[in-house]
Formats: sequence, structure tokens, C-alpha cells
Amino acid sequence: MGTIGLAVIGAGYWGPNLVRNAQATPGLRLEYLCDLDLARARRVLGDYSTVRVSDSLDEVLADPAVQAVAIATPAKTHLPVAMAALEAGKHVLVEKPLAATYAEGRQLVEAADSRGLTLMLDHTYCYTPAVAHLRELVRGGGIGSVQYLDSVRINLGLVQPDVDVLWDLAPHDLSIFLSILPDDVRVLSVAAHGSDPIGAGHACVAHLTIQLTGGAMAHVHVNWLSPTKIRTMVIGGSTRTVVWDDLNPTQRLSVYDRGVERTEAADLGEDRRAQTIVSYRTGDMVAPALPEKEALRAVMTEFHASITERRAPLTDGRSGLQVLSILEAASASLAQGGVFMPILGADLDLLDADSEGVSA
Amino acid sequence: MGTIGLAVIGAGYWGPNLVRNAQATPGLRLEYLCDLDLARARRVLGDYSTVRVSDSLDEVLADPAVQAVAIATPAKTHLPVAMAALEAGKHVLVEKPLAATYAEGRQLVEAADSRGLTLMLDHTYCYTPAVAHLRELVRGGGIGSVQYLDSVRINLGLVQPDVDVLWDLAPHDLSIFLSILPDDVRVLSVAAHGSDPIGAGHACVAHLTIQLTGGAMAHVHVNWLSPTKIRTMVIGGSTRTVVWDDLNPTQRLSVYDRGVERTEAADLGEDRRAQTIVSYRTGDMVAPALPEKEALRAVMTEFHASITERRAPLTDGRSGLQVLSILEAASASLAQGGVFMPILGADLDLLDADSEGVSA
Amino acid sequence: MGTIGLAVIGAGYWGPNLVRNAQATPGLRLEYLCDLDLARARRVLGDYSTVRVSDSLDEVLADPAVQAVAIATPAKTHLPVAMAALEAGKHVLVEKPLAATYAEGRQLVEAADSRGLTLMLDHTYCYTPAVAHLRELVRGGGIGSVQYLDSVRINLGLVQPDVDVLWDLAPHDLSIFLSILPDDVRVLSVAAHGSDPIGAGHACVAHLTIQLTGGAMAHVHVNWLSPTKIRTMVIGGSTRTVVWDDLNPTQRLSVYDRGVERTEAADLGEDRRAQTIVSYRTGDMVAPALPEKEALRAVMTEFHASITERRAPLTDGRSGLQVLSILEAASASLAQGGVFMPILGADLDLLDADSEGVSA
Amino acid sequence: MGTIGLAVIGAGYWGPNLVRNAQATPGLRLEYLCDLDLARARRVLGDYSTVRVSDSLDEVLADPAVQAVAIATPAKTHLPVAMAALEAGKHVLVEKPLAATYAEGRQLVEAADSRGLTLMLDHTYCYTPAVAHLRELVRGGGIGSVQYLDSVRINLGLVQPDVDVLWDLAPHDLSIFLSILPDDVRVLSVAAHGSDPIGAGHACVAHLTIQLTGGAMAHVHVNWLSPTKIRTMVIGGSTRTVVWDDLNPTQRLSVYDRGVERTEAADLGEDRRAQTIVSYRTGDMVAPALPEKEALRAVMTEFHASITERRAPLTDGRSGLQVLSILEAASASLAQGGVFMPILGADLDLLDADSEGVSA
Repeated sequence: MGTIGLAVIGAGYWGPNLVRNAQATPGLRLEYLCDLDLARARRVLGDYSTVRVSDSLDEVLADPAVQAVAIATPAKTHLPVAMAALEAGKHVLVEKPLAATYAEGRQLVEAADSRGLTLMLDHTYCYTPAVAHLRELVRGGGIGSVQYLDSVRINLGLVQPDVDVLWDLAPHDLSIFLSILPDDVRVLSVAAHGSDPIGAGHACVAHLTIQLTGGAMAHVHVNWLSPTKIRTMVIGGSTRTVVWDDLNPTQRLSVYDRGVERTEAADLGEDRRAQTIVSYRTGDMVAPALPEKEALRAVMTEFHASITERRAPLTDGRSGLQVLSILEAASASLAQGGVFMPILGADLDLLDADSEGVSA
Repeated sequence: MGTIGLAVIGAGYWGPNLVRNAQATPGLRLEYLCDLDLARARRVLGDYSTVRVSDSLDEVLADPAVQAVAIATPAKTHLPVAMAALEAGKHVLVEKPLAATYAEGRQLVEAADSRGLTLMLDHTYCYTPAVAHLRELVRGGGIGSVQYLDSVRINLGLVQPDVDVLWDLAPHDLSIFLSILPDDVRVLSVAAHGSDPIGAGHACVAHLTIQLTGGAMAHVHVNWLSPTKIRTMVIGGSTRTVVWDDLNPTQRLSVYDRGVERTEAADLGEDRRAQTIVSYRTGDMVAPALPEKEALRAVMTEFHASITERRAPLTDGRSGLQVLSILEAASASLAQGGVFMPILGADLDLLDADSEGVSA
Repeated sequence: MGTIGLAVIGAGYWGPNLVRNAQATPGLRLEYLCDLDLARARRVLGDYSTVRVSDSLDEVLADPAVQAVAIATPAKTHLPVAMAALEAGKHVLVEKPLAATYAEGRQLVEAADSRGLTLMLDHTYCYTPAVAHLRELVRGGGIGSVQYLDSVRINLGLVQPDVDVLWDLAPHDLSIFLSILPDDVRVLSVAAHGSDPIGAGHACVAHLTIQLTGGAMAHVHVNWLSPTKIRTMVIGGSTRTVVWDDLNPTQRLSVYDRGVERTEAADLGEDRRAQTIVSYRTGDMVAPALPEKEALRAVMTEFHASITERRAPLTDGRSGLQVLSILEAASASLAQGGVFMPILGADLDLLDADSEGVSA
Repeated sequence: MGTIGLAVIGAGYWGPNLVRNAQATPGLRLEYLCDLDLARARRVLGDYSTVRVSDSLDEVLADPAVQAVAIATPAKTHLPVAMAALEAGKHVLVEKPLAATYAEGRQLVEAADSRGLTLMLDHTYCYTPAVAHLRELVRGGGIGSVQYLDSVRINLGLVQPDVDVLWDLAPHDLSIFLSILPDDVRVLSVAAHGSDPIGAGHACVAHLTIQLTGGAMAHVHVNWLSPTKIRTMVIGGSTRTVVWDDLNPTQRLSVYDRGVERTEAADLGEDRRAQTIVSYRTGDMVAPALPEKEALRAVMTEFHASITERRAPLTDGRSGLQVLSILEAASASLAQGGVFMPILGADLDLLDADSEGVSA
């Protein structure tokens, strides 16, 4: 198949990155940058660009040169913008989160499925070389069974006016979890604690605890108020444990042949009991060589490939829905003092069946 | 006052450290190392020591040369051992936690109070130069009002046979919190989540969320299964934020003049709302020079000083009881799925009144 | 004054960065990207650009819309390319080093001076916020008198076919030294050691030792073969010492109130002599907040400003000549087994006088 | 063989470490701590020790319970003290450097050889698990042929009154080099540069460049004036490169499968020449698990073993002499403006033959 004409919708924080990467992706042809603020769109393109600007979504969607759109507008507008695009027969790449609510997200997934159009989430981190390596390692059994996950994503961040820190930052962690966990590990329930010490009107510091099938626990710490920036994820396994430090470009992944295992306890005296029921392994650490690639380039490439190959992208609408279902349960837990809230797995299965039908 | 004769009880993991530091502390005279396993006690002392060993607590407590004991036996033996010492009129320094339960700990506090004896907790971290600096900074208003606390204490640790990771490690974090928080910030309630992915019989990974008066939240992450060792604490304040990295000896404390403050929102358009309701401060960072002192030496010095000056030590029985009350609430929360459990503040106030009477 | 038309010459390694930053700089108008390989030039501009490409330097220089050129071609071509531009009346920004030899560089300086044209070196590091801060600190007396400088610039680098590691990397360190040192500190002589363990035909690892007026020594370690990347510079002063770690974006500069000072030695016994003739200062460390700005943007802004304001740029031809004089002396030292070679200061003074005449 | 009676001579900076480790080493029996300052010796032993103190070397050497001495006195006293011990028939462990001059050191080696006594250098670093691993790796061919060595040892150090920074710190680096280099790599010549910016009377900052057989170069940077502490060594090889960071206890060694190799250059155009004559390898990094052992314990164990097994220790007098020969050449280079000075290899070979005769 030939080149795909693309329009980027939204020239705010993330739009310029989409513009830059779309222009550099073979097979994509950037036709428009669309924003209600035409001057902002022009500033993003600069003084030397042949790309058209528009402040009319209708105009863009009516142009047959446009076969796909990449949406980087605020989350609450995702439903109308993406729905309009789907209804106009355009493939859609949308910023995280998929929509402002699970119900809205489901409308989009169904609309895309029923039309046989690609609906892809820009879960950018899932396209980094680090997550690609993690995915292969963890799903391929390279760390044994998953014992725990721990993600910390804190820095002096932009306090959002309309969403709390969980909705702003945790989609990254959740989409990564979903991307790397084996299929037989499922999210069962989630509890959330948060605080708003500056009076922003919603949580600026939050902790998410997730119960997984098999007894493992995942934890996410997100924080807009930290003076230092930390982006680490630990995935503990029965045979190896991986530490991902995204801010250490020369050693992002460290795979430790270290761990604790329960062994059979012999009949020993009091003092040595601790030493005998578990065994410790302290082997070497390997930091795999990773290519340096811009993740958003890979997002664009996957978007193009999923359209031309008529297949579901790696981060399809269903993965976006799963993230929304966890976020909604987390919000409910936050409102109810931190109790665990179940995740709607059955619902997703149903949807899964639908989507299988569609992709056939 | 003259020299205080000391016996160390317990020659296991921590006892050798007590022995070494007691010998180096002016004003203390180490008389005995007492352990049921005489050979172990002899090994700890080595082949060149004039210190006596004993396997009889009674013998040691009956010796009038002994005025004080330092107890480093398992927590469940703290009540009988410390009670015997107090009943024999000895001052007591005891490893954390004070006792196996709050009720037991309270017996010890009351026994010490009623006899006018020193009961001191070896909350070693509270005697590090870093915590001393933090205490002065935070209680002195140097970071403004406290917005959040976050402590991470993870490494490949010894999986304990009889206590979970919360009881093993969190006493460090909790005693530090209590030591540095201003008097008007109190612990209201606590929730705990934990998991036991290796089948140890109790939590090996745990998260503690603490609600404080004033809307601030404290969080503790303890983990025995991590291949990497992290010991960091962040104390976020309205005017400054401190990061304590205990594993970075050349820069343990970093005081950031960075933060987020809510300001009055002007009547601005949609897009710029986020930028207008909060303001960001990104000033310099100062790493204060700290002396390099062994904390346990300072513990011994404070134990000696509190005895000779007939005053409460910095980490007295009451602080040990506070830690126990939080741990018990955390265990209750863990058993009940992570709901917040209140901390018995009133009870402590009552005790506080008692102890004030005693120390007068 | 109005907009300045610019042509970038050379679409290789560095050219794309010049193109990108020129396009984003107010007051500059990018007219051409010129390269013998037209296809390469087109690839750099991408499919959406209105900028013209050309494979003819003559064509570009003949266009009156071009008032200035930025040259990113190999060093050995700097003389003919830059000279052609100057003779055509164009202002010149040239990549480091100024030219392949001191003699060639001097021709360019003289040609620019005689025509009243700007000749500026793209010593990019001199325009980073870190070096700007260092310059103000060191020249402003903020670290006392300079005691030593030490720069390490090592990584797995591209082994150049025609220049050794000194000529490839050390211009960065030397231009930074020259930029931050006070006027009364001058480079006296230089010695160089190098090795070529892979048989590349010239040094791949090298050490440069520079004697400065006042007894201070500067050292540069450059290495193409290191598996790890290090970019640090230490500037030791009598009252403070600064460490610049360019790979630590959250703490690039650390200003230590630490040092050693000689004090008067009292008449003390043998053992305490070491402690008495020097005194140690171990105060706080301050990491100043630095703006995050792209240095090459500041290069472009300075190029534009120096043209429009008819003044010498911060990194003018003379600073480029000083770097060349040190590099040539270093090469001579390398060829003669590491002996110290004098730097031609008198020559520079003469030139200085010339250039003062010109800039008047 | 039975227990060896030991006396430690010198209760200053390093003596206490010898005392502590000697007491903990099976097979050694600490009989005396000897120092001219009896009170200092008593302070080192503390109030609970059965070890005797003495201020008379004669007394100690006359005691038949003493079969060996460990000498931690200033370097200029090594000749008389060690010679007296050897003449009294005692085995000798001596702090680095072996003696104040090569000539003095040679007297000691000959005296020990002629009497069949052990003369061992306390080159402590050579007994760390890191160097043991490096030795096996490098000598075993695990990094291919050695391309370069680079050692940095800087911190705010005690400015010594009687020796410069080279003689104070570089013995560590040199003894490590000698310990890990394959037998066919020899030290050919050395050049040194130094500066004394505080007026201490000798170099406080120094750089050592060493030419090795095979074209490799080793470099040592030592500095007493640095506010930060760095202790790193890089050993570049043709197939792997190792980085040793002694201040990173969790990852002291990093073995990189990264490097540069010259390949045959094809007949390609100008532009691609750099890419074609060398090839780059960017594979994984492995951080081997190392035991945590105190090196000085291993020194004591080796001292005991070499005596009882009547064999040369790992760091024998000859290795101490090699270090002295490099230091003397470095001082000569420093005095002559940094020219390369040859190392007396033939002399060492002669000595080598002698010592082989002795150890037979």
C-alpha cells in the first residue's frame, strides 16, 4: 500500500513531537497540523514548512488526502474528536488516556471495530527499546514468575488543572505493566491513596497498589511535587529481577541474577531458622545493550504498519480501555478511603471476543 | 557521676556492634557479654578481651558492678529480659522494636517510669548526623510546612522467620518520622498493603500509608526481595524539600529550594489555566556538610548521659511505644485489606502525662 | 537592523544541528543548505522544507540574499571555504577548529579583520548555561585564585581518519578553559602524551598538561576508546572548587566550599606536622539552578547579535587562534616525547593589538 | 605449623587496622603493639585488651614469642626498623612503600632473601575481591590485549609533610597495575607532571604517564586537593574493557563488551573513510558478583600462609621494589620537566633470578 496522509490534531504540549516524528516516518505524509489557535499551529511548524495549518477539524476530515489522524488534544475532547474522525473513515492514533471515562473509551473502541479502522493508543513508553526488551524478557520467562512490580515516576511536574496525578502520570506505568506482563497474569483489584498538600483540588501525590493473579503485587508511586526526578521500575521475578532506570541512558536496564527462594526447612535450632527456610542467590548483573531509538518514531511506524497490514497495533484500543478500567477503579478507591476495588475483567473478555471478530 | 557498668545481652547480629561501641564510649564500662550460647559470646569478644562472658542473665543482673544493660535479643524476649533488668534496678537500652506488642511495651514503660529508671530505644538512625540535621531543619521550620514524606528501604534482606518486613524494617522509618516531625504534626491513621510472593508466611514487600494532621501523607516502602539497595527519604515542604540518600556518603542530604505553590488563579483562558493556579520555584540545591560519626557511638553517649543526668533520652520508651502503636495498626490494616486504621493518640497522651510526672 | 540571510555549508554530522537552530533563531533567515552531495542536503531538510539546497558554493556566495554563512565542513576545507565567503563579503561562523593550522587560521582572522566582517567560532560548549555560570564564577573571583583544572572527555567515539583525538576533542576543553579563566591567567606551555593501541595511525588516547601563569596546571584527558562516557571538569580554587558533570542534567555544577590552605606552621612535634602546615575546609556544597537552554541556539543568537551590533562575538577568531596555537604545541610535544612546548603568547598579543585596531 | 606470634610496629594512622585484622586472623597471635608513644598504643588497644604495649623495638624483637612483625611506621624508618627485624630473624610485613628509596628497598629484599625470611608488602588493594577478579580476568586473557590503563585517585586528602602526592598515593595504582598485568607486559618508561598550587613544598596534584611494552599507555591521576573523591580505574582491552569504581559498593566492576577495532579499509570514498577503517562493538555489560571481604584480612592470611608454606607472598619484596623503581623514575621526570625516564628492568631481572634462587 502507498503513503498514508496524516493530520495532527492539537498543537499544544505533545503535538510538536507528533509533527516532527510524522515528518520523519517513511510511508506517512503529513498533510495538516490542526488547532483552534492557528497562530500556535504556525509557530509549531516554523517559517520553513510546506505543511498546511487549519483551525477546522471538519475541513481536515473532509479532505480525502487525509486517511489518518493523530490526536493530541485534552483527554475530555478525545471522544468527540476521535469519533468524528472514525465516522469520517479515518484511522486514529490518540494520546493517552484513550478518553475521559471508560464508557467513552468503549464507544471509541466499538466505533473503530465496527468500521474496521485502526484505533491506536500513543502509549509511547511501550515503544522504547527498554520496554521492548522487558516485554521479551518477562513474557519469555526470563525472570521466572513475576513476584512484584514497583514503579516510581516523580518529578516537579506540571500540576494539571483538570485531572489528578494518577490520571496524568499512571497511564504510563499501567500501559507498561500491561505490555510486559505474561498473558496469564491479570489485574484483579486496585487500591489508591493520595494527598493534595498544596490545595490543588485533587491528588498531587498518589500511591497505587494492584493485586495480580498469582499473589504478586504491583505498586505505582506518582508525584508532581518532587524536586528530583525519578523514573524507575523494578520487576521482581523468581529467577531474576530487572531494574529499569529510564534516566540512566548508559544503563537503563540491569538484570540481576539475585533473589530469594523458599527452600525446605530442615529441623534446625532456633537461631538458624531464618537462614534455612529461604536461600539467597547473588549472581552477576547484566546490563543488556539497547539501541538508542526515539520511541515516538516507533509509534508512528507501528501506526502506519497496523493500517497497511490491517492488523491490531501493539497498543490497541483494548489496551487503552484496560488502562481506563484501572484508573476508574483507582479513583473509586481514592474516594472510598483506599479499599481495594475490583477490575472489570469479564467485561474486557467480552470486548476481546468482539475485537477478535473484527480483526478476523 | 562516675562510670556506669554495662552488660550487653545477646551476641547475635547486632550485639557485636553494641560491644564495640560500648567499649569505646567514655563513662561506660563493659562488664559482660551475656548469651545463652557462651561460645558465640566468646567469638564476638575474640581472643584478646578482658570482658567477661556469661550465659546467665540472673548472674549478670545480680552483679552490683552492672548498672545498665543493652539488650539485643529477639523482640519476643524483650519483655522478660528487659523486665528482669528493670526489676533488678538496671537502666535499659533495648533494640527496636521495644517489644513484641504494644501491651508488652507499655508494661516496660510503666515499669521503668515507676522505678525512675532510663528506658531507651536503640533507634540508631535517629542518632545519625543526617537525622540530627533533618530534625533541626524540619522542626525549625526550615522547609516550611510538611507536605509529604516518602521513605524507601529496600534491599536483598534477611527474610525473618517470625516477623514480617513491616515489623523488621519499618521501625527505622517510623522512628525517624517521629524524630523529625514538628510537635503539631501527629499520626492519625495508617493503611498497609503487603505481599508474600515467595511463600515465606508473611509479607516480604509492603507499603505503608500514613495520614498526618494537616493533610500531609507519609509513605513507607519496605522490601526484602530487591536486588538493589535503596535507602532514601524525601521530606517535602512548602518552602524547601529535602532528599536524604543514606547510601551516598558524599551527599547524604540535598536541600532543594524547589517546589510548587498554589497561587490565586486569574481569569485566563482554557489553555493557560494550569500555569496560573500554581507557581513553580526552581532555585539552588544545598548539600550541607555533615560530620562523619558512627551513630551507635552517639546512642551509647546518649544512654550514658540520660542516666547520669536523670533525664529522658531522645528516643525514650514513649517513642518506642508510638512506633509499636503504628505497627499494630498497620498489621490490623494488612489483615483487613488495606483500610485505614486509627492510631491510639489519646492513649499516648495519657501515657505522656504519666511520663511527665515521672521525669519531673 | 533587519533579518540576516544565512547559508549553512555542509550537511554532514553537525550541519543538521545548524540548520535546525538557524531556523528557530529570530533575525536569521535560512536561505540555503549547501553540500556537494545534494541528496544528503535534501535528506537533512526533509520532505516539508522551503529551504533551498545547492551543491555550488559559488552560487550561494553570489546570492545577495545571503549575508552570512555557517560552515560545518571538514577542518582542512575551512581555509578555502571561509576565505571564499569572506572575500564575498559574508560574515562567517565556523565549526571548531578554526582551521587545519595556526597559519591558516591567522589568514582567516586577518581577512575578516581587514574587511570588518564577523568571524565567529562555534565553540558550542562556551554557550551552555554551565559555562556561562562558570565564567561568571571563576572570572568574578568566586573560587579565589585558580589552583588547577582537570577535564575528562572520554567515550566510545568516532575514530577520525584525518585528525587525532587531541585535535578532535580537546578544542572543546581548551575553548572552555580560555572562556572561563581570568585575564591574568595565561597559558605558558603544554606537554602531550598519547597512544594508538588500535593502530589507527594517530593517538586515540591522549593527555594534555598545561602550565599556567601563577603555578596552576590544567590537564585534559581525551579518549575515543572508553566504553563509558565521562564529561567532567574540575576547577580548583583557593576558596571554592567547582565540579561540572555535563552528563548529570539535574546537577551539572557543584560548588564546594572545600579545600586545603597552607597556614603558618607552628613549632610542633614530628607527628603533628602534617596537620599543622595546612588547614582543611569542608563546608556545604551548592548546586546552582541553571536554565535548560540549547547552547547552539545561543551560538546563533550571538552570531546574529555580533553582526548587527558590529562587535566581536564571545568566541571570536582570536579565541579560535589560541586554541590552534595550543593544539599545534601539543602536537609538537607529542612528536618530541612529551616535553613542554611554549605557547606563542607574544604572537597573540601582536594579533590582539591588530584586532583591537580593527574592532575600534 | 603452629601459631605465629606477631608484633605490630606503629600505632599511627594504619596501625589500628593491622591490630584489628591481626586479632581476627586464625594462625596469628598478636603479642605486642609497639610505638614510641606508649599512651597512643594504649589508646589504640582500648581498655579491654590483653595485648601488650611496648615502646622498645629491641624488647619486642628480643622476645622469642614474636616470629613476625607488621610495620606501619613512616616510610623513611622502614629501612632501620625492618632491617632490625630481619636481623633478629623475624618475618616482615611492611606498609607501602617498601622503603624511602630503591637502594634502601633493595637492601631489605637482599637481607630477607639471604635469611630465607618472608618480606611482604601490604599492598592492600591487591587483596580486594575486585583486584583478585581483575587479575584473573586480565591475565587470563578475558579482555584481549591491554590497550590502555587509566587510574584516578583523588580526594581531599591529608597533605603529607615529607612526601609528595605521587609517593603518597601512586603506590596503590602502581601495585595494582603490576598485580593485574600479564607477565609479557612490562613497564618501559614513565613521565610525570605535577603542581603545588598551595605552596606545600611538593606536588599536590600529579599525573603519571607510563609506557608499556606493546604500545599501551597507563595513566595515573593523583590529587590531594579535590573536594570530591574518585577512585576509578579503567583497563581497556582489545575485546573487553573493565571499569572499576571502588566507591560503588554495589557495582565495583563493570565489564563492557564494547570497543573499537581496526578493520581492513575498503576502497571507499572520502566521507565514509572513518566508518570503514574501524569497527565498533557495543555489546552487553556484565557486573560480576564479588564477595564482600575486608582486604586487610586477606593480607594477614597471605602473610601467615607465605610464612608457614615457605613461599613468596603475592606482594613480595620484588613487587615493592618495582613500585619504588617507577616512583624514583617519576620523581626524576618531575625534576626534569616531564621527559620520559626509563625503568630499570634489567636490574629487576637480575634480582628476580636471585629471588628465585632464594625461594627454591
